[in-house]
Amino acid sequence: MEHYQARLDGVFQALADPTRRAVLGRLGQGPASISDLAKPFDMALPSFMKHIHLLEDSGWIRTTKQGRVRTCAIEKKQFTAVESWLAEQRSLWEARTDRLEKFVTAKEF
Amino acid sequence: MEHYQARLDGVFQALADPTRRAVLGRLGQGPASISDLAKPFDMALPSFMKHIHLLEDSGWIRTTKQGRVRTCAIEKKQFTAVESWLAEQRSLWEARTDRLEKFVTAKEF
Repeated sequence: MEHYQARLDGVFQALADPTRRAVLGRLGQGPASISDLAKPFDMALPSFMKHIHLLEDSGWIRTTKQGRVRTCAIEKKQFTAVESWLAEQRSLWEARTDRLEKFVTAKEF
Repeated sequence: MEHYQARLDGVFQALADPTRRAVLGRLGQGPASISDLAKPFDMALPSFMKHIHLLEDSGWIRTTKQGRVRTCAIEKKQFTAVESWLAEQRSLWEARTDRLEKFVTAKEF
Protein backbone atom coordinates (compact mmCIF):
# COMPACT_ATOMS: atom_id res chain seq x y z
CA MET A 1 0.00 0.00 0.00
CA GLU A 2 2.81 2.39 0.90
CA HIS A 3 4.57 1.46 -2.32
CA TYR A 4 1.35 2.14 -4.25
CA GLN A 5 0.99 5.53 -2.52
CA ALA A 6 4.62 6.48 -3.24
CA ARG A 7 4.12 5.46 -6.87
CA LEU A 8 0.99 7.61 -7.13
CA ASP A 9 2.94 10.61 -5.74
CA GLY A 10 5.37 10.31 -8.65
CA VAL A 11 2.63 9.65 -11.20
CA PHE A 12 0.80 12.89 -10.29
CA GLN A 13 3.99 14.91 -9.68
CA ALA A 14 5.03 14.11 -13.24
CA LEU A 15 1.78 15.60 -14.55
CA ALA A 16 2.14 18.84 -12.54
CA ASP A 17 4.23 20.54 -15.22
CA PRO A 18 3.26 21.87 -18.68
CA THR A 19 6.49 20.70 -20.38
CA ARG A 20 6.03 17.13 -19.14
CA ARG A 21 2.35 17.09 -20.14
CA ALA A 22 3.32 18.40 -23.60
CA VAL A 23 5.97 15.66 -23.94
CA LEU A 24 3.37 13.00 -23.05
CA GLY A 25 0.98 14.56 -25.58
CA ARG A 26 3.65 14.39 -28.28
CA LEU A 27 4.55 10.77 -27.38
CA GLY A 28 0.87 9.85 -27.59
CA GLN A 29 1.33 10.31 -31.34
CA GLY A 30 4.23 7.84 -31.42
CA PRO A 31 7.82 7.40 -30.15
CA ALA A 32 10.30 10.25 -30.68
CA SER A 33 13.98 10.98 -30.13
CA ILE A 34 15.01 13.28 -27.29
CA SER A 35 16.30 15.93 -29.71
CA ASP A 36 12.98 15.95 -31.60
CA LEU A 37 11.06 16.13 -28.33
CA ALA A 38 13.19 19.03 -27.06
CA LYS A 39 12.78 21.17 -30.23
CA PRO A 40 9.54 23.00 -29.38
CA PHE A 41 10.86 24.07 -25.97
CA ASP A 42 12.98 27.13 -25.33
CA MET A 43 15.04 25.27 -22.74
CA ALA A 44 18.65 24.15 -22.24
CA LEU A 45 19.10 20.40 -22.85
CA PRO A 46 20.10 19.62 -19.22
CA SER A 47 16.85 21.23 -17.99
CA PHE A 48 14.87 19.30 -20.58
CA MET A 49 16.61 16.06 -19.55
CA LYS A 50 15.45 16.59 -15.96
CA HIS A 51 11.87 16.41 -17.23
CA ILE A 52 12.67 13.29 -19.26
CA HIS A 53 14.25 11.60 -16.23
CA LEU A 54 11.30 12.48 -14.04
CA LEU A 55 8.90 11.02 -16.62
CA GLU A 56 11.05 7.90 -16.87
CA ASP A 57 11.45 7.47 -13.08
CA SER A 58 7.72 7.83 -12.52
CA GLY A 59 7.03 5.20 -15.19
CA TRP A 60 5.31 7.46 -17.73
CA ILE A 61 7.85 6.81 -20.46
CA ARG A 62 10.51 4.26 -21.36
CA THR A 63 13.65 5.18 -23.27
CA THR A 64 15.91 3.07 -25.46
CA LYS A 65 19.30 4.00 -26.87
CA GLN A 66 20.46 2.95 -30.32
CA GLY A 67 23.85 4.31 -31.30
CA ARG A 68 23.79 7.96 -30.24
CA VAL A 69 20.03 8.37 -30.40
CA ARG A 70 17.82 7.90 -27.36
CA THR A 71 14.17 7.29 -28.23
CA CYS A 72 11.27 7.81 -25.85
CA ALA A 73 7.93 6.01 -25.90
CA ILE A 74 4.88 6.49 -23.70
CA GLU A 75 3.76 3.88 -21.15
CA LYS A 76 0.02 3.97 -21.60
CA LYS A 77 -0.50 1.70 -18.62
CA GLN A 78 0.34 4.62 -16.32
CA PHE A 79 -2.93 6.22 -17.37
CA THR A 80 -4.60 3.20 -15.80
CA ALA A 81 -3.13 4.23 -12.41
CA VAL A 82 -4.76 7.66 -12.72
CA GLU A 83 -8.01 6.18 -14.01
CA SER A 84 -8.11 3.65 -11.13
CA TRP A 85 -7.65 6.41 -8.61
CA LEU A 86 -10.46 8.45 -10.18
CA ALA A 87 -12.74 5.38 -10.27
CA GLU A 88 -11.98 4.75 -6.57
CA GLN A 89 -13.04 8.30 -5.67
CA ARG A 90 -16.21 8.04 -7.73
CA SER A 91 -17.16 4.78 -6.03
CA LEU A 92 -16.92 6.56 -2.65
CA TRP A 93 -19.31 9.34 -3.74
CA GLU A 94 -21.66 6.94 -5.43
CA ALA A 95 -21.87 4.75 -2.32
CA ARG A 96 -22.72 7.91 -0.39
CA THR A 97 -25.36 8.99 -2.92
CA ASP A 98 -26.90 5.50 -2.77
CA ARG A 99 -27.10 5.69 1.03
CA LEU A 100 -28.72 9.15 0.85
CA GLU A 101 -31.23 7.91 -1.71
CA LYS A 102 -32.16 4.92 0.46
CA PHE A 103 -32.56 7.24 3.43
CA VAL A 104 -34.84 9.63 1.48
CA THR A 105 -36.87 6.73 0.00
CA ALA A 106 -37.26 5.13 3.43
CA LYS A 107 -38.57 8.45 4.81
CA GLU A 108 -41.27 8.58 2.15
CA PHE A 109 -43.11 5.52 3.55
CA MET B 1 -4.56 28.38 -22.58
CA GLU B 2 -1.75 29.45 -20.24
CA HIS B 3 -4.27 29.89 -17.47
CA TYR B 4 -5.63 26.40 -18.17
CA GLN B 5 -2.08 24.97 -18.06
CA ALA B 6 -1.28 26.77 -14.78
CA ARG B 7 -4.53 25.47 -13.31
CA LEU B 8 -3.68 21.91 -14.37
CA ASP B 9 -0.26 22.23 -12.66
CA GLY B 10 -2.02 22.93 -9.37
CA VAL B 11 -4.66 20.26 -9.92
CA PHE B 12 -2.03 17.54 -10.37
CA GLN B 13 0.36 18.97 -7.76
CA ALA B 14 -2.43 18.68 -5.20
CA LEU B 15 -2.77 14.96 -5.97
CA ALA B 16 0.97 14.28 -5.61
CA ASP B 17 0.75 13.72 -1.86
CA PRO B 18 -0.78 10.84 0.17
CA THR B 19 -2.23 13.13 2.89
CA ARG B 20 -4.05 15.28 0.34
CA ARG B 21 -5.35 12.22 -1.54
CA ALA B 22 -6.57 10.77 1.78
CA VAL B 23 -8.34 14.06 2.63
CA LEU B 24 -10.10 14.01 -0.77
CA GLY B 25 -11.06 10.36 -0.18
CA ARG B 26 -12.56 11.28 3.20
CA LEU B 27 -14.42 14.29 1.75
CA GLY B 28 -15.84 12.05 -0.98
CA GLN B 29 -17.95 10.58 1.83
CA GLY B 30 -19.29 14.01 2.78
CA PRO B 31 -18.18 17.38 4.25
CA ALA B 32 -16.07 17.37 7.43
CA SER B 33 -14.57 19.85 9.87
CA ILE B 34 -10.83 20.50 9.76
CA SER B 35 -10.32 18.98 13.21
CA ASP B 36 -12.12 15.77 12.16
CA LEU B 37 -10.12 15.64 8.94
CA ALA B 38 -6.83 16.10 10.81
CA LYS B 39 -7.48 13.31 13.36
CA PRO B 40 -6.12 10.31 11.41
CA PHE B 41 -2.84 12.10 10.68
CA ASP B 42 0.16 12.21 12.97
CA MET B 43 0.89 15.79 11.98
CA ALA B 44 1.01 19.24 13.65
CA LEU B 45 -2.02 21.36 12.76
CA PRO B 46 0.02 24.04 10.87
CA SER B 47 1.46 21.31 8.62
CA PHE B 48 -1.99 19.85 8.06
CA MET B 49 -3.35 23.34 7.26
CA LYS B 50 -0.75 23.70 4.50
CA HIS B 51 -2.32 20.68 2.80
CA ILE B 52 -5.81 22.13 3.28
CA HIS B 53 -4.72 25.48 1.78
CA LEU B 54 -3.11 23.76 -1.17
CA LEU B 55 -6.30 21.76 -1.80
CA GLU B 56 -8.36 24.95 -1.53
CA ASP B 57 -6.05 27.05 -3.75
CA SER B 58 -6.03 24.38 -6.46
CA GLY B 59 -9.84 24.23 -6.39
CA TRP B 60 -10.20 20.67 -5.04
CA ILE B 61 -12.09 21.74 -1.93
CA ARG B 62 -14.08 24.70 -0.65
CA THR B 63 -14.19 25.66 3.01
CA THR B 64 -16.83 27.56 4.98
CA LYS B 65 -16.53 28.90 8.52
CA GLN B 66 -19.42 28.89 10.95
CA GLY B 67 -18.54 30.18 14.41
CA ARG B 68 -15.21 28.55 15.25
CA VAL B 69 -15.63 25.55 12.99
CA ARG B 70 -14.28 25.47 9.45
CA THR B 71 -15.92 22.81 7.29
CA CYS B 72 -14.43 21.41 4.09
CA ALA B 73 -16.31 19.98 1.12
CA ILE B 74 -14.99 18.42 -2.07
CA GLU B 75 -15.34 20.13 -5.47
CA LYS B 76 -16.21 17.18 -7.68
CA LYS B 77 -15.93 19.31 -10.81
CA GLN B 78 -12.14 19.26 -10.40
CA PHE B 79 -12.24 15.57 -11.30
CA THR B 80 -13.63 16.69 -14.65
CA ALA B 81 -10.37 18.61 -15.30
CA VAL B 82 -8.36 15.40 -14.78
CA GLU B 83 -10.83 13.34 -16.80
CA SER B 84 -10.75 15.87 -19.67
CA TRP B 85 -6.98 15.73 -19.76
CA LEU B 86 -7.03 11.91 -19.85
CA ALA B 87 -9.68 11.95 -22.60
CA GLU B 88 -7.52 14.38 -24.61
CA GLN B 89 -4.53 12.02 -24.40
CA ARG B 90 -6.64 9.03 -25.39
CA SER B 91 -8.01 10.85 -28.42
CA LEU B 92 -4.40 11.45 -29.58
CA TRP B 93 -3.54 7.73 -29.38
CA GLU B 94 -6.80 6.68 -30.93
CA ALA B 95 -6.32 9.04 -33.88
CA ARG B 96 -2.88 7.47 -34.32
CA THR B 97 -4.26 3.91 -34.11
CA ASP B 98 -6.92 4.83 -36.71
CA ARG B 99 -4.24 6.18 -39.07
CA LEU B 100 -2.17 3.02 -38.63
CA GLU B 101 -5.20 0.84 -39.28
CA LYS B 102 -6.04 2.77 -42.47
CA PHE B 103 -2.43 2.42 -43.61
CA VAL B 104 -2.40 -1.35 -42.99
CA THR B 105 -5.81 -1.79 -44.62
CA ALA B 106 -4.73 0.27 -47.64
CA LYS B 107 -1.62 -1.94 -48.01
CA GLU B 108 -3.77 -5.07 -48.17
CA PHE B 109 -5.33 -4.07 -51.52
